[in-house]
Amino acid sequence: MDIFQTLESEVRSYCRGWPTTFDRASGSMLYDENGKQYLDFFAGAGSLNYGHNNPRLKRAVLDYIERDGVTHSLDMNTVAKRDLLESFQDIVLEPRELDYKVMFPGPAGANAVEAALKLARKVTGRESIINFTNAFHGMTLGALSVTGNSMKRSGAGIPLVHATPMPYDNYFEGQTPDFLFFEKLLADSGSGLNEPAAVIVETVQGEGGINAARTEWLRGLADLCQRHGILLIVDDVQMGCGRTGPFFSFELAGIEPDIVCLSKSIGGYGFPLALTLIKPSLDVWEPGEHNGTFRGVNPAFVAATEALRTYWQDDKLEKGTLAKGEHVGRSLTEIAESYPDVAMRAKGRGLARGLQFGDERIAEAVCRQAFGRGLLMETSGPVGEVVKIMPPLTITDAELEEGLGLVAQSVKGALG
Amino acid sequence: MDIFQTLESEVRSYCRGWPTTFDRASGSMLYDENGKQYLDFFAGAGSLNYGHNNPRLKRAVLDYIERDGVTHSLDMNTVAKRDLLESFQDIVLEPRELDYKVMFPGPAGANAVEAALKLARKVTGRESIINFTNAFHGMTLGALSVTGNSMKRSGAGIPLVHATPMPYDNYFEGQTPDFLFFEKLLADSGSGLNEPAAVIVETVQGEGGINAARTEWLRGLADLCQRHGILLIVDDVQMGCGRTGPFFSFELAGIEPDIVCLSKSIGGYGFPLALTLIKPSLDVWEPGEHNGTFRGVNPAFVAATEALRTYWQDDKLEKGTLAKGEHVGRSLTEIAESYPDVAMRAKGRGLARGLQFGDERIAEAVCRQAFGRGLLMETSGPVGEVVKIMPPLTITDAELEEGLGLVAQSVKGALG
Amino acid sequence: MDIFQTLESEVRSYCRGWPTTFDRASGSMLYDENGKQYLDFFAGAGSLNYGHNNPRLKRAVLDYIERDGVTHSLDMNTVAKRDLLESFQDIVLEPRELDYKVMFPGPAGANAVEAALKLARKVTGRESIINFTNAFHGMTLGALSVTGNSMKRSGAGIPLVHATPMPYDNYFEGQTPDFLFFEKLLADSGSGLNEPAAVIVETVQGEGGINAARTEWLRGLADLCQRHGILLIVDDVQMGCGRTGPFFSFELAGIEPDIVCLSKSIGGYGFPLALTLIKPSLDVWEPGEHNGTFRGVNPAFVAATEALRTYWQDDKLEKGTLAKGEHVGRSLTEIAESYPDVAMRAKGRGLARGLQFGDERIAEAVCRQAFGRGLLMETSGPVGEVVKIMPPLTITDAELEEGLGLVAQSVKGALG
Amino acid sequence: MDIFQTLESEVRSYCRGWPTTFDRASGSMLYDENGKQYLDFFAGAGSLNYGHNNPRLKRAVLDYIERDGVTHSLDMNTVAKRDLLESFQDIVLEPRELDYKVMFPGPAGANAVEAALKLARKVTGRESIINFTNAFHGMTLGALSVTGNSMKRSGAGIPLVHATPMPYDNYFEGQTPDFLFFEKLLADSGSGLNEPAAVIVETVQGEGGINAARTEWLRGLADLCQRHGILLIVDDVQMGCGRTGPFFSFELAGIEPDIVCLSKSIGGYGFPLALTLIKPSLDVWEPGEHNGTFRGVNPAFVAATEALRTYWQDDKLEKGTLAKGEHVGRSLTEIAESYPDVAMRAKGRGLARGLQFGDERIAEAVCRQAFGRGLLMETSGPVGEVVKIMPPLTITDAELEEGLGLVAQSVKGALG
Repeated sequence: MDIFQTLESEVRSYCRGWPTTFDRASGSMLYDENGKQYLDFFAGAGSLNYGHNNPRLKRAVLDYIERDGVTHSLDMNTVAKRDLLESFQDIVLEPRELDYKVMFPGPAGANAVEAALKLARKVTGRESIINFTNAFHGMTLGALSVTGNSMKRSGAGIPLVHATPMPYDNYFEGQTPDFLFFEKLLADSGSGLNEPAAVIVETVQGEGGINAARTEWLRGLADLCQRHGILLIVDDVQMGCGRTGPFFSFELAGIEPDIVCLSKSIGGYGFPLALTLIKPSLDVWEPGEHNGTFRGVNPAFVAATEALRTYWQDDKLEKGTLAKGEHVGRSLTEIAESYPDVAMRAKGRGLARGLQFGDERIAEAVCRQAFGRGLLMETSGPVGEVVKIMPPLTITDAELEEGLGLVAQSVKGALG
Repeated sequence: MDIFQTLESEVRSYCRGWPTTFDRASGSMLYDENGKQYLDFFAGAGSLNYGHNNPRLKRAVLDYIERDGVTHSLDMNTVAKRDLLESFQDIVLEPRELDYKVMFPGPAGANAVEAALKLARKVTGRESIINFTNAFHGMTLGALSVTGNSMKRSGAGIPLVHATPMPYDNYFEGQTPDFLFFEKLLADSGSGLNEPAAVIVETVQGEGGINAARTEWLRGLADLCQRHGILLIVDDVQMGCGRTGPFFSFELAGIEPDIVCLSKSIGGYGFPLALTLIKPSLDVWEPGEHNGTFRGVNPAFVAATEALRTYWQDDKLEKGTLAKGEHVGRSLTEIAESYPDVAMRAKGRGLARGLQFGDERIAEAVCRQAFGRGLLMETSGPVGEVVKIMPPLTITDAELEEGLGLVAQSVKGALG
Repeated sequence: MDIFQTLESEVRSYCRGWPTTFDRASGSMLYDENGKQYLDFFAGAGSLNYGHNNPRLKRAVLDYIERDGVTHSLDMNTVAKRDLLESFQDIVLEPRELDYKVMFPGPAGANAVEAALKLARKVTGRESIINFTNAFHGMTLGALSVTGNSMKRSGAGIPLVHATPMPYDNYFEGQTPDFLFFEKLLADSGSGLNEPAAVIVETVQGEGGINAARTEWLRGLADLCQRHGILLIVDDVQMGCGRTGPFFSFELAGIEPDIVCLSKSIGGYGFPLALTLIKPSLDVWEPGEHNGTFRGVNPAFVAATEALRTYWQDDKLEKGTLAKGEHVGRSLTEIAESYPDVAMRAKGRGLARGLQFGDERIAEAVCRQAFGRGLLMETSGPVGEVVKIMPPLTITDAELEEGLGLVAQSVKGALG
Repeated sequence: MDIFQTLESEVRSYCRGWPTTFDRASGSMLYDENGKQYLDFFAGAGSLNYGHNNPRLKRAVLDYIERDGVTHSLDMNTVAKRDLLESFQDIVLEPRELDYKVMFPGPAGANAVEAALKLARKVTGRESIINFTNAFHGMTLGALSVTGNSMKRSGAGIPLVHATPMPYDNYFEGQTPDFLFFEKLLADSGSGLNEPAAVIVETVQGEGGINAARTEWLRGLADLCQRHGILLIVDDVQMGCGRTGPFFSFELAGIEPDIVCLSKSIGGYGFPLALTLIKPSLDVWEPGEHNGTFRGVNPAFVAATEALRTYWQDDKLEKGTLAKGEHVGRSLTEIAESYPDVAMRAKGRGLARGLQFGDERIAEAVCRQAFGRGLLMETSGPVGEVVKIMPPLTITDAELEEGLGLVAQSVKGALG
């Protein structure tokens, strides 16, 4: 029994599926303490879009630490924070003609969601939030209340209230018109639906099983929200920062949410950072009405700034992601088609891809096989029925090809 | 108008009281972009107990990053995490004969609190939590529900429920026996108090105004909890890691909580890290029942390990903190006594000290004066009536003396 | 300004639509203080199924009061209560092979619902209840939380939680299979739907607009509940006691709910009485765990017993109700068909009938016209778009004919 | 096994302590089916202040029913309702210079409380209610949430929220100043107490153990509410209608609540009736925003009117109640003093009196002994430690003397 088993809480999970001890990492590769190499199709659950220890970001971080740049600053003004704000304005917001105030809600995605929900309720004076089936928004009490997974919900220990789930895109596989239920409940003053403050949505559900909403569904949702005076919150924690191609995942749909949650890869280097973007008219916070200790992790600001400057001043990364994503999609479809007797299908958008099985035990076996072959992938979906493929966006074509080959072998191994 | 004003949300607060832009920091000093030096009696709200960019911690972090150590690992096993667990076991738990499982609940103190509340509710099957007047436990919905500050509570946008506040130690200034109300409500089956799952308490309330509970009150609380089958959670996020002298603030009282929340200075270098310590019999989590992206910030593990090895293998830091703390206490008492006509009194324990004014405008003026003199201090307490003095524990005697002199001048200036 | 306007609260409502002062009543007729006669197609919102001051019930009540029978007995045993229990057993439960324990939850339908919800939660250990769009179950906080009407919900002054509305039968006018959404949310462990303790349903929604669920939908619902371990509560407060023909409205569907709520006409004479019927295995109450002062209104017991003995020992009333109901349905359909250009349709079952208009202002005008012609009818439905026709079940054929003529004239008048 | 045992739910309670079947009643006497007579020191839990089947009220009710007066009218205007409103205005409100709007919230006390809580929340826009230790306000979800008894609370099956209990008068037996905790929590913006919409209080707690608040405490409470903008709701359901002497129990304190709840004896004859009295400026209800089927029980209106005319046009009843009450108090004190070794004390005000024992088993034994001797009394208090003495206000001196003799014998028997 090692110390992880004796001292760490039973709540630990990733270490159970990947029973080794990692030491170093670089680009798309992780290495365990014995030097064994793993190709990473997981990317820190979307936090490592620019790869592990990306050399340009690493250089910037090292320089900053070496020169004794302020490390921890809460929401004091710092030079590193100014650089980030300016870069975010110049490189992200202005070119997209997006007008948002930037809030630093705390270190992680759940903080971005908590702040978004608080603000939506404060602005509207309503409590109720609409979330979607199989949504994942975080584990703190506010974020958990809009998360779908029943195992995680039961961890709350109290009844989770104020959220009503609506069917996500294609939940009924085309049997019903989009928003049939939602629109009817809103239109019917006797429906019993509490008037919602906001809708919170992921454009592609990562933890929910790599469910990619169609752009017309997203536009329909934005339109519905506008017609009914409901705020639209896009949780872009996992799908933002280029995961689906463009910087914001919602750009493909041409919508402009009222509030946007960012985290995971915004910190660039795997450092905790989160942003809540707010339409200026909604920025009604009192000073300090929401705060937190780790809102000013300056090495994260530095890495974030360097990432924006390196990858988002032109469209190379975006185009590369789209191209790689389509390639992954085709490969997964081929794999699926090569087993006509097995319930299996390819899903996803950009470099958020999935291979869904009818039987979750096969998905689990595929990931286990992959680990044995030196490939890291996790399952997602309500019962873990989807193999999730999320490599760093900076993965090379050769690495991608190698990984897809390992996926094919792992599927074969799992089914054999 | 700079970009902080134009782009950052109105929620920002510290930057309003300290209107400059910081750049570098070292030990007890911060420097703004114009090179102006500030002595830090704030210490990242307790996150920088070992000072800014502590050279030993800095060296360990730089080495780790330079050698491409894994940066971001969720709850995968890593070498850096093993080092931390082993150090925590050997240096912190074993010498104190404490038996806890260690949970990584997310990057910040609020995550440690959210996990503690969830677990207490899951273990007991009850929802209700007892918190204390002027408690501060965080801004996410679960943590906010047990926080006292009404401005912060109103930010929730929903009624905060499941928590009942009890009077903290000395709330009635000795007028009533300890726990008079709490004991009676528990003993009376008709009292209307929902049976509590847990009590959550800070041994010294930092945000609440540097209120230090007497050790006998803490022992009384632990006893009450045991008699009634209520779990005792100590939130040591701000007061742990040596702030009051010993590693855990509750050591002074000789109590052993069921659950302990750590964050802020546990990461050593100002990096986000949080721990929830759990009595082994309470570790009933399902794998993954609580999770989060930023539970594996390995540079924080590295700095944390180095901090434990450097400062906690002997009692020098602890003794130094106690000695410095007493010195600060005496100095503050002298200041207070030198203005017999002004309502003012010294408070606190260890290096968590406060100077409480009858009029909060004076406290605010003192901090403003201090900033002008190159000293950073913030106010705390329900209306900001307490000047909070929390220097790094590693502050030199000369720096401390200098700072106390500036405090005296600032009080004089504010009252003048 | 009369005393109703000066002294009674603004919450009063029926008196606004029927601006007169009633004095006497008999059978299907009400008389105001000026002696003007009104034919009653309202029947005390379903509380007067046996007509006003039914002579047999009146005789029994007068005899009981005259002989100083106990009036008020809480849940003490009384002779009058024993008579009711025996009659209910012999006349209602046994012939239908129904096995229920009988609870006296308080004087009104809302008490029957509150007790049903409490018990379902206690038995299952779950909090969540599924209700249906346009449900009406009462105005006390528990009952209101499962009621659909948004105006009434907003009266709560707190967020109403723990209930999730599902589409009632035909909510999408045949566009979707029955229970499509409900079944999917239950089957999907990631849906975010809290596991329900119970479903509460009216077989015909009276306040919701005289929506009659198909018997196959009700059977489907009972089947769904059984498959998922969810308790089925039928709220038969308005539709029970013969309103749709048989004593219980659910008999038509051949289902056997776990819990049944009765009130309104169970008291026979318009006296407050309510029953909650409970499957014996669910009767896990502690003595006194639910109580109330007005659970023992003995004149109501007496009238209830007499009503059961008079009307439910044979099937005459049931057959008469069905026949009259069909006649009303045909008449309303004829009226609707005679205005091909006006959106109007007949609805309902038994003697719970409605005439639904596309424009609620017409429905209101019809009721106003009817009042002027000496006919009492109210509107129902989310915006009051349905004219509700609920005469006493004991109405004579001649009175029914007269009333239907007045309805036709009122429609003509409203549209003219 | 009789039908009560086989068919009635396990929730039944009074019938367990009084194992007989009652049939007739008159004045202060009940008779079981075998003709055995019981003197009633229970009075329908306060619903029978004018005795059983009071002859003047009986005559008025019989006349009304015989002449086919409208029985059931919801909130339609009726002659009987007008009579009641006029009498209430002329006999109750005007002579006391009280200005209230009258709301008919449903048939029972819980409805009066539910309406009061709704309105207080609607008016203030706040959710939180302050209740008191050992309060009893009813069993519907809103009323239950402000009730203290833990057994009854656990029946809710959901966490009861939005209410915070404060210590009732003398809760600490004089150890602390009045309202010490409440005032401090209100004054301290960091206390964590949600800002209350209202305080709900009984002037004498009946179910809570016959705890009579001092008039200066009630005045202090009224003053506190006014200073903090909190609405004051007096629940006079059990203690109103003369139980403590004057019509309203709060008259003794000279306070004027914002909202008053009446029920139990307002219906005079044991018929369900409830009133919520509202300061005119607070009457902001929308028509129909709160409603209910049994708000118009006209025989109750008739009996109520007759009771007001008979008993409240002069001060005879009030004076008689005070005199009888003092006599009961003295007698109970004598009983208590005659057992110097037994923890026992007399409590109460007016004809709401109690004999509290240190051991609840004695209190239960006293009531059992009394039943055997033909005297009906129940226990109250959190564990049933108080023998509750609440005869009809119309009890004759001889009956009262007889009853007090039986009490003395029952105590002797229980202790023997």
